[in-house]
Amino acid sequence: MGSMSLSDIILTPLETIPTIGGNVMHAMKSSDHGYTSFGEAYFSWVEKGTIKGWKRHLRMQMNLIVPLGSVKFVFFLNGGRVFREEKVGIERYMRLSVPPGIWFGFQGLAAPQSLVLNIASLAHDPKEVDRIELGDIEYEWS
Amino acid sequence: MGSMSLSDIILTPLETIPTIGGNVMHAMKSSDHGYTSFGEAYFSWVEKGTIKGWKRHLRMQMNLIVPLGSVKFVFFLNGGRVFREEKVGIERYMRLSVPPGIWFGFQGLAAPQSLVLNIASLAHDPKEVDRIELGDIEYEWS
Repeated sequence: MGSMSLSDIILTPLETIPTIGGNVMHAMKSSDHGYTSFGEAYFSWVEKGTIKGWKRHLRMQMNLIVPLGSVKFVFFLNGGRVFREEKVGIERYMRLSVPPGIWFGFQGLAAPQSLVLNIASLAHDPKEVDRIELGDIEYEWS
Repeated sequence: MGSMSLSDIILTPLETIPTIGGNVMHAMKSSDHGYTSFGEAYFSWVEKGTIKGWKRHLRMQMNLIVPLGSVKFVFFLNGGRVFREEKVGIERYMRLSVPPGIWFGFQGLAAPQSLVLNIASLAHDPKEVDRIELGDIEYEWS
């Protein structure tokens, strides 16, 4: 993880296909840039204003998609004071592919809740997750 | 597909983990019953009352999860007059794993829209999809 950079996070525009009775929205194909393997897919709801963080996966590649609402993700590297911020959701429908080793937190921006799908390279394993308190990092959530 | 039965559709209860600021909801792990391979994940919105159908995949295994709203799925076999009906959604949070060869349609039950995630064994390929008109099958959508 020593040579990890915040620019290793891949931001990929996703297609929304207008469809009578309800749109179809792409999430991920196995041939897409950023896909490594399938371990687990799970949803996280995030209420407007709620901040979840900070976490770092040691082995999991995350692929984050927000099909409902809007979420601000914030990323940083260990010991770093440089942050990368990305707002994604229905108005900016893009996938974030996040390699292991990068710290992240996220905040719900839309009422009442936004929905995050993580298509993860590994199944959930608490042993590969580092956590620190939100207050441990000086970052101005607005 | 000749020995296919509607009981080959696997219904799996999924866990919702109550979480402050927004729940976590399971979708699928690679070790789960019903998982074969990862080809593509995509979302389909379905407005209340809208019916989408009928379609049949010739090679794709579908894994259908409804994290928002409520959706009625109806399945039948070629030439059959026997239907299997399953309502799934936030009040009955279960995954439907559907082998290839089974005809299906679905109806949105919740306002304004419900959300369906399909974790599919193949990427979208129109050549492996059969379609017929809704009116081609005598089924009473309520």
